[in-house]
Amino acid sequence: MHRDPDCVFCKIVAAELQASVVYEDDSVLAFLDIGPLAEGHLLLVPREHHERLTELPVRTASAVASALPQISRALLQVTKADGFNLLMNQGRVSGQIVPHLHFHLIPRKAGDNLGYRWNVGKYPPGRETQITAAFQVALSHHKGE
Amino acid sequence: MHRDPDCVFCKIVAAELQASVVYEDDSVLAFLDIGPLAEGHLLLVPREHHERLTELPVRTASAVASALPQISRALLQVTKADGFNLLMNQGRVSGQIVPHLHFHLIPRKAGDNLGYRWNVGKYPPGRETQITAAFQVALSHHKGE
Repeated sequence: MHRDPDCVFCKIVAAELQASVVYEDDSVLAFLDIGPLAEGHLLLVPREHHERLTELPVRTASAVASALPQISRALLQVTKADGFNLLMNQGRVSGQIVPHLHFHLIPRKAGDNLGYRWNVGKYPPGRETQITAAFQVALSHHKGE
Repeated sequence: MHRDPDCVFCKIVAAELQASVVYEDDSVLAFLDIGPLAEGHLLLVPREHHERLTELPVRTASAVASALPQISRALLQVTKADGFNLLMNQGRVSGQIVPHLHFHLIPRKAGDNLGYRWNVGKYPPGRETQITAAFQVALSHHKGE
């Protein structure tokens, strides 16, 4: 299994570093974030070291997602939250600090001052069609991967 | 396949409502968000109607995730963004408006004033252990689902 000797999450996966682990299976681990945005804020990580979602093998992406429904049920049960956000940051600019792909599960309650900054924009005329075409070209190249 | 006759995303899936679709396979559809936070902001939805991640069948969660690596590669290629956020909102309190589960892919560039409000808290002594134990109980009940 691919591992990075300097990675703090790889050390948690290998039990070389303590963490409050709440779930584990053959492919993934979930533990409490030590800097929680809310009580019960979890991190879900694949055991394998991958920095980016763009380079994640499909089988690993699938394994991570398979654990999500039951972990999110437990999250609501334990925290009594009204909802939650699932968040993944890829790249420094997006807020990623630890270069081992991880998904935040952040319990939400009314008035918690959390959430995503929702600054909605608008496409100028014709721009949406251009971008859609560019995506279709990019994704046709990726077909079958 | 489970569908909700009043759901706007079910109508897009059924091609009864126009959307700028950039990717589709047997299980999922990706299209441009009409209120983009950034150029190329995508929504990825399962074709089946489910409101919540907590009730999503594992096979559907897996199908959604399997499409993510290639869609996120295309996102960076098309938008020339430096990174992106993957975000899912469950429940009104979390920002969910359309009650058909959807994942936002939001391209990020320096100085874009987007991102999650990162108000870090801290557990009082003993609290982390209590919560971890509560999660372990909750998740042992869910084992094998």
